[in-house]
Amino acid sequence: MKDYIIHHEWKIIEEGFRPEYNRISESIFSIGNGNMGQRANFEEHYSGDSLRGAYIAGIYYPDKTRVGWWKNGYPEYFAKIINSTNWIGIRVLVNGQELDLATVKILSFRRELNMRHGLLSRLFRVEFSNGNQVEVESERFLSIADREVGAIKYSVKALNFSGEISVTPYLDGDVFNEDSNYDEKFWVEIHKEIQKNEGYVTLETRKTKFQVCTGMFFRSFKNGENIAIPPQNKIQPKFISAGQVVPVKEGDTLTVEKYASTVTSLNYPVKKLQGFAAKAIQRAAEKRFDGLFAEHKQKWLNEWKFSDIKIEGDVAAQQGIRFNIFQLKQSYSGEDERFNIGPKGFTGEKYGGVTYWDTEAYCLPFYLSTASGEISKNLLLYRYKHLPKAIENAKNLGFANQAALYPMVTINGEECHNEWEITFEEIHRNGAIAYAVYNYVNYTGNKEYLAPYGFEVLLGISRFWSQRVNWSEEKKKYVILGVTGPNEYENNVNNNFHTNYMAVWTLKYTLGVIRYVKVEFPYLFEELIRKWKFNELKETGKWKDIIDHMYFPFDGEKQLYLQQDGFLDKELLPVSKLPKSDLPINQKWSWDRILRSPYIKQADTLQSMFWFENEFTKDELKRHFDFYEPLTVHESSLSPCIHSILAAKIGYLEKSYQMYLRTARLDLDDYNNDTDDGLHITSMGGTWMAIVMGFGGLRVVNDKLILNPFIPGKWKSYTFRVDFRGAHLCFEIKKDQLIITNFSAVSVPLVVWGDEYVLNKKSKQEFIKEIIE
Amino acid sequence: MKDYIIHHEWKIIEEGFRPEYNRISESIFSIGNGNMGQRANFEEHYSGDSLRGAYIAGIYYPDKTRVGWWKNGYPEYFAKIINSTNWIGIRVLVNGQELDLATVKILSFRRELNMRHGLLSRLFRVEFSNGNQVEVESERFLSIADREVGAIKYSVKALNFSGEISVTPYLDGDVFNEDSNYDEKFWVEIHKEIQKNEGYVTLETRKTKFQVCTGMFFRSFKNGENIAIPPQNKIQPKFISAGQVVPVKEGDTLTVEKYASTVTSLNYPVKKLQGFAAKAIQRAAEKRFDGLFAEHKQKWLNEWKFSDIKIEGDVAAQQGIRFNIFQLKQSYSGEDERFNIGPKGFTGEKYGGVTYWDTEAYCLPFYLSTASGEISKNLLLYRYKHLPKAIENAKNLGFANQAALYPMVTINGEECHNEWEITFEEIHRNGAIAYAVYNYVNYTGNKEYLAPYGFEVLLGISRFWSQRVNWSEEKKKYVILGVTGPNEYENNVNNNFHTNYMAVWTLKYTLGVIRYVKVEFPYLFEELIRKWKFNELKETGKWKDIIDHMYFPFDGEKQLYLQQDGFLDKELLPVSKLPKSDLPINQKWSWDRILRSPYIKQADTLQSMFWFENEFTKDELKRHFDFYEPLTVHESSLSPCIHSILAAKIGYLEKSYQMYLRTARLDLDDYNNDTDDGLHITSMGGTWMAIVMGFGGLRVVNDKLILNPFIPGKWKSYTFRVDFRGAHLCFEIKKDQLIITNFSAVSVPLVVWGDEYVLNKKSKQEFIKEIIE
Repeated sequence: MKDYIIHHEWKIIEEGFRPEYNRISESIFSIGNGNMGQRANFEEHYSGDSLRGAYIAGIYYPDKTRVGWWKNGYPEYFAKIINSTNWIGIRVLVNGQELDLATVKILSFRRELNMRHGLLSRLFRVEFSNGNQVEVESERFLSIADREVGAIKYSVKALNFSGEISVTPYLDGDVFNEDSNYDEKFWVEIHKEIQKNEGYVTLETRKTKFQVCTGMFFRSFKNGENIAIPPQNKIQPKFISAGQVVPVKEGDTLTVEKYASTVTSLNYPVKKLQGFAAKAIQRAAEKRFDGLFAEHKQKWLNEWKFSDIKIEGDVAAQQGIRFNIFQLKQSYSGEDERFNIGPKGFTGEKYGGVTYWDTEAYCLPFYLSTASGEISKNLLLYRYKHLPKAIENAKNLGFANQAALYPMVTINGEECHNEWEITFEEIHRNGAIAYAVYNYVNYTGNKEYLAPYGFEVLLGISRFWSQRVNWSEEKKKYVILGVTGPNEYENNVNNNFHTNYMAVWTLKYTLGVIRYVKVEFPYLFEELIRKWKFNELKETGKWKDIIDHMYFPFDGEKQLYLQQDGFLDKELLPVSKLPKSDLPINQKWSWDRILRSPYIKQADTLQSMFWFENEFTKDELKRHFDFYEPLTVHESSLSPCIHSILAAKIGYLEKSYQMYLRTARLDLDDYNNDTDDGLHITSMGGTWMAIVMGFGGLRVVNDKLILNPFIPGKWKSYTFRVDFRGAHLCFEIKKDQLIITNFSAVSVPLVVWGDEYVLNKKSKQEFIKEIIE
Repeated sequence: MKDYIIHHEWKIIEEGFRPEYNRISESIFSIGNGNMGQRANFEEHYSGDSLRGAYIAGIYYPDKTRVGWWKNGYPEYFAKIINSTNWIGIRVLVNGQELDLATVKILSFRRELNMRHGLLSRLFRVEFSNGNQVEVESERFLSIADREVGAIKYSVKALNFSGEISVTPYLDGDVFNEDSNYDEKFWVEIHKEIQKNEGYVTLETRKTKFQVCTGMFFRSFKNGENIAIPPQNKIQPKFISAGQVVPVKEGDTLTVEKYASTVTSLNYPVKKLQGFAAKAIQRAAEKRFDGLFAEHKQKWLNEWKFSDIKIEGDVAAQQGIRFNIFQLKQSYSGEDERFNIGPKGFTGEKYGGVTYWDTEAYCLPFYLSTASGEISKNLLLYRYKHLPKAIENAKNLGFANQAALYPMVTINGEECHNEWEITFEEIHRNGAIAYAVYNYVNYTGNKEYLAPYGFEVLLGISRFWSQRVNWSEEKKKYVILGVTGPNEYENNVNNNFHTNYMAVWTLKYTLGVIRYVKVEFPYLFEELIRKWKFNELKETGKWKDIIDHMYFPFDGEKQLYLQQDGFLDKELLPVSKLPKSDLPINQKWSWDRILRSPYIKQADTLQSMFWFENEFTKDELKRHFDFYEPLTVHESSLSPCIHSILAAKIGYLEKSYQMYLRTARLDLDDYNNDTDDGLHITSMGGTWMAIVMGFGGLRVVNDKLILNPFIPGKWKSYTFRVDFRGAHLCFEIKKDQLIITNFSAVSVPLVVWGDEYVLNKKSKQEFIKEIIE
């Protein structure tokens, strides 16, 4: 755990430069606009330790799989959103000496990410070996108002000398990924050109043949006046630059405004790419940095208006939750259903920037509540469009009749992951994708989604489950053998409770959806039956038999559902009894020791109890929480939020807050020592859930909003906003008091602390928890 | 399955050249002398598909591990016995045209491996594009009389032309391994030189720094007369050659006798390597090809005298068993306790030429019975010397108190394998290594081995088991969680019967050994107690508790020990009911499907029933065989032999013979489509066991030899020989008749078909099975 980020309500601030934390800061101070992301690498040259990264949504390379021992069914490649053209680069020489924070003497350094406005800035003073001192101020953003554009304002002031300063804005496409499996470079050059202060580099990815054109344009000023010196252009492989050597006197300030545009063959014909990159550059150049920033900032203010969470009385918590919301919004705009949310967003190479079940399980609720329904629908459509690939995937593994198994990791619907215990066995993901359909329909009330889209996804998944079970003559029950649950510290187990539960739930839900579509959309239903060769009677008959006879591992004495068969054979020592030096076990223990231990990486049995809390009594929830929580090591970033919400549900309020703390500042404090790899973007959705669903107790049941808020002891108040079926609502929770404002033109029925109300349109109402009798 | 090898009692014969089978033939026709092995690559240049391979015992490279996803505890490298200097090369040009079987027209081709004499030969006629025809005859062997020496006699006859033939013997160390993880070359050049017809290449392995000097010397003759033309020498990186261009007339025969020597820094100081290589060359040159061959052949005749198995009435079976014995003897001479037996011997790159539990489980019995006791003792000492590494290995995985876990795969005692489910979990290997100690002592009667060596190995292994179990509160028994049994089609299972059984057996046996050493070697025992900080009372107390309370999965209704917990939950469809097109499942099914199926790769529960047959009733053995055999796919070469022996034991004689057939000609007929990779050397020990222990029913119980022979229906008779405690015995089995010859000066007590006898020294006795009453 680190503690170097200065606490502030709206800003992330680093004072003083710590080269040893540079990769961490590069992750934390990342900027993005859903279309593209950029780690907080420096504009000027930096020879110290750094992970350079600029990533473009949807632009990936299928990196040939690397395995020790091949297993039948492994995918051929791992898709990776790859590092692309360095668009931020501005080389600076001061009297011939390179400005490089790894070699100069740093007199002061401040880095700041203004989350309210979406602006990254730096201000630093350095001294060169010859005694020359400069002050540098840089600002940059990736516009969310014009998502093809990024802008930089970079100023160098001569503090104590006269002489010359050279500035050289450039584009460099000769980049690599640190995680390239075979040390390949992924880009080939298509075209490059530069004239004066405007240039373009067009590259193509190997194999996938995506083309990306990056454009740049810059203006330079001395003390605010245009610099007339004609730039010297340079061209190298995949590289263009334009340099100016400017004479300066002590006190002079040299400023470069650099605009970059990024356009891709996903959106434009390759022949016109550079034309469109030039158009974006033109737009930017006309608005100038300040104009571009003004519209960008205005959009951010608007985003915050609808999705901010305000916490009073705890600046660290406030900074934490805003950072999570900010980074989620930077990673995914939801405007393009071809894209999704990588576990690290655009902040690093790990997990390849591609899609996991994280999206459905941890991110969807955030987008359901804070963005228009279209955005969550796009997340669902992403999977709908991949259905043919999920069917192909299942077929490759030996399933028939258009059963669908969604991949564990994917960008285009094909499986990318290659550990058998995950790839082939972590099949609960298929349940999470079915659950997302339910979650979307339940929250939005948009049942119509089921007919043209949801039904088919559910049918494919149900067919998978119905083939994946087998009948145990021994148990006279259906069993599911050889799986890995969400807890990846158990592999190839039999009858994982969560997996069996998801299977049965999916079958039940699909039966209901079939009834609905059949009644409401009879013609479409006929069409779907033909398309899917769906033998309703026979197939649903089998499903019902499975629903009625599924086996769940259960201990009668303890009245406990067991995580899997044989779980009670383990030595059930609570985590708190382990020597501190043994934690985290995934770094300290051999893999086999982890596997035979009872320790749980992330919510597993409790994951289904969270999703289906209404199917269990509070006593049951408590009993299972009391059993599993002490055995849970939370070594996945996705774990504490679920425990936090469950703890709140069963009244363990202090525990709920403790668990929340483990997620809220995970990256800001580098809690797991891995933020250098990138931020835990998808777990940020979980942090949001912990506040809104945990502390706020927000649910949607039978088309009604339910609230059961409490406030953590340390806080004065907290305020969150949600969109619900056309209404925009703001909830402010104080001690024993809930103030709800309905900003919209519709009245909203809701349940607060167990009592039913109707919240009138355009009104504010106060609810009091304690009744004085 | 292929069927192109011509059946012959003593020879392996290929008539006609099949380039598509070339890699298979290169494996089958391999020669070796325990110190070195050479695939049947051609002496002359060959541009067709080929796996070149010359391997030297103990000379390995630690190839950096390649994994998809790293797990704590994985080894850094995989040790590989590597392809080394090509010593067989003789380039041939006929009137300027390259002799290359991939480009010339082949008129006739015969390849022959004379197993009786240990000689590989070829005879072929080819025609060049210009119509020139030559006949080539080549003979080569790696001497088992002088294991540093190989010799080649290579003749080219001009059949229909006059002109010139150029022959260029060479040494080429610029070789590579196909299975190099990172496409590296493993050798660097130290020195090379050539003068006239004698030259040397000295290379060093990267990282491990082994040095190998290869020398060559040749003489050439035209129609038997020395050729006086001075050779033209050439030197290239890691390469030397000496060429002669010889004018020939139609009918002339050009002959090259090439001798090569291979000496290594394992045996000599590096500075003197070339000197010793030169000495070996001198020895060879003095004896000439014929002299060298005469002593080599004599040694082979002698080997056969003591270890041949003769089968009358079935040439295919005769060829099969002799091939197995021949290749085993070629792979391991047993003279050097630093060496061991790789699963592919020196016949290919697969499995890296390093050591698996195969040695203890499948090879030891062969060497116990057919070679001097020293050889099997050397195999045991190999593990004894690796004990410190096994302790280190266990420590790395979290075990304490000098517990020992032998690696799954090793060359120097360190683990090489990197699949967690094998590396960390296939721990029954530790039991196999303990069992080998028992097996050796039981067979040889050499109990003294236990005090200085066996005790420590057993103590380390017993300590491992005592920590690897855990107490199940649920079962009130000790359990062993998270293992992989011999059946690698199950991973990470709980309470694998075989593993639990081996654990308990090891503890019991170790208790007995402790009593023995304590009583017989009290001073040594005291020393060992101090060395091992052995708390006898406490530690053996725990062991006894484990012995008394170990859990074994058992089904009361079926009266069956189960392969592991939950085995009866599977769909128990016999293999015979699977569509033929689904077999072999390891090529046709995805890995997850295999895992959740009931199909057994190789004897697992039946492995312990084989080893401990006396601890089960015949009914029990039958019941378990009847249950497990129909579920066994035998997709490991190590499987059928065990089933064959068990089948014989319980009286399933036809089944026993069927199982035998699957192992005897495995490589000759390329049964599993993988002989191109190399031969299944270690499974050849199993084939021998199937005849001697299966058909012959040979056992040693309470210091007595036991025989229960039967003869497969098709055979007229079979004869095998064993050494037993100083006696050399020959058993000839005919229908209902057993003739035993005791060639030695000691009388031997034995049990034949249940009756006790004493076999007098230097005598022959006939036993009749059927009693006429």
